[in-house]
Amino acid sequence: MVKSIQDIVKNSKTNGVVVGLSGGIDSAIVMVLAVRALGKEKVLGLILPNTRLAESFEDDATKHAKQLGIEVKKISLVDFEDAFIKNVDKEVAENRLALGNAIARFRMILLYAYSNHLNYLVIGTSNKTEIKVGYITKYGDGGIDFEPCGDLYKTQIRVLAKYLDIPEEIITKAPTAGLWEGQTDEGEMGISYDNLDIILLAIEKGYTKNQIVEKLQLEKALIEKVEKMIKNSEHKRKMPPILDL
Amino acid sequence: MVKSIQDIVKNSKTNGVVVGLSGGIDSAIVMVLAVRALGKEKVLGLILPNTRLAESFEDDATKHAKQLGIEVKKISLVDFEDAFIKNVDKEVAENRLALGNAIARFRMILLYAYSNHLNYLVIGTSNKTEIKVGYITKYGDGGIDFEPCGDLYKTQIRVLAKYLDIPEEIITKAPTAGLWEGQTDEGEMGISYDNLDIILLAIEKGYTKNQIVEKLQLEKALIEKVEKMIKNSEHKRKMPPILDL
Repeated sequence: MVKSIQDIVKNSKTNGVVVGLSGGIDSAIVMVLAVRALGKEKVLGLILPNTRLAESFEDDATKHAKQLGIEVKKISLVDFEDAFIKNVDKEVAENRLALGNAIARFRMILLYAYSNHLNYLVIGTSNKTEIKVGYITKYGDGGIDFEPCGDLYKTQIRVLAKYLDIPEEIITKAPTAGLWEGQTDEGEMGISYDNLDIILLAIEKGYTKNQIVEKLQLEKALIEKVEKMIKNSEHKRKMPPILDL
Repeated sequence: MVKSIQDIVKNSKTNGVVVGLSGGIDSAIVMVLAVRALGKEKVLGLILPNTRLAESFEDDATKHAKQLGIEVKKISLVDFEDAFIKNVDKEVAENRLALGNAIARFRMILLYAYSNHLNYLVIGTSNKTEIKVGYITKYGDGGIDFEPCGDLYKTQIRVLAKYLDIPEEIITKAPTAGLWEGQTDEGEMGISYDNLDIILLAIEKGYTKNQIVEKLQLEKALIEKVEKMIKNSEHKRKMPPILDL
């Protein structure tokens, strides 16, 4: 992974990477890998809290970044959220999904602002589980230049985190997209990462729905739910179609 | 094109499309095609002026949208620009490219906010010329759900505009991304659309650099400039790479 990060930055003729730090396990791993690959001088961390994010996330991210010696900037999203709420229609501002997606996209804008300024790439912090089921905001956290951990399931991410000595408080935290209060990945998706990953792996290996039900002793409805998540998020994993004329 | 737009909206189980209207020829065409495909009730136009956009653009877009009878909302980007300038470092705020890209991305955010709220798709307004040379902001105007005119060169867009009775003041306007004052596409790219399109077409048809120089009586440096634009923008035309582990 370290070698690939080096190659991608070198081949793109850029000077380093900018990473969005959430205080969660995925961005912590990406930061560590980037520092190993490029050196701490070539990694900029941005902490981009919205009004609904618990402060412990910011603190954990800041502390970890300082341990690694990289430069960190903290930019609150409050002014961006206010501009959004003020300028769109009331029913749009009150639409939790619309506001949540906007917040993920404001983060993308700030990462790219520093990327433009420093000639850095924006390094992604998504994992294979999120990408496969589309638990990602299109052009938000999905709006990056390359994904170092996009081929690792969340359960594999947890193993890698221990190997890389990620701080315990970051590893044990319940994963959340941090878009609204009380949001957790597993709560929102309605399935645990353990079940999700084993189902995704079984589908990847070509098992049929009935085989998965039988071998994993899981309910058919749960497999079907995952299949539906995969299907409904296809558009997030490919370039927007161009009408062929 | 009308049939394809109908199919895409139907297959995605959405209710219509939202289109960003700039007062330029591309978005005018997309609006007309969308109305023909879906009916005026299923097309929402957003006019998203920044502080540097000439008012004539807004007026032309509004007038044309009213002629077609679609609902239009105008949302100024001033509060978003202010939030950006206030919250990033001074040298980032003064970086014209960083601010210009941020503006294109704020537009994307607003289009998707209404897209989320109405269950509409975001219809793109880019053409083949812009896409091929990467004259597009990644996750900005490039951040859409599908491109109806992405297979038409700018010179073909002009022909289609006449066929579709696009108002003369929109057709004759100098194309601009509208990101800063005095910006024009041709000025910024340093090449006319006529030359650009004929070179792109020749490359598409498999002609060598020397053949193009000879047949089109253009300077070699101009062909090389276009080749470089194509190469440097490759990353904008594909999904961000995922490290293969």
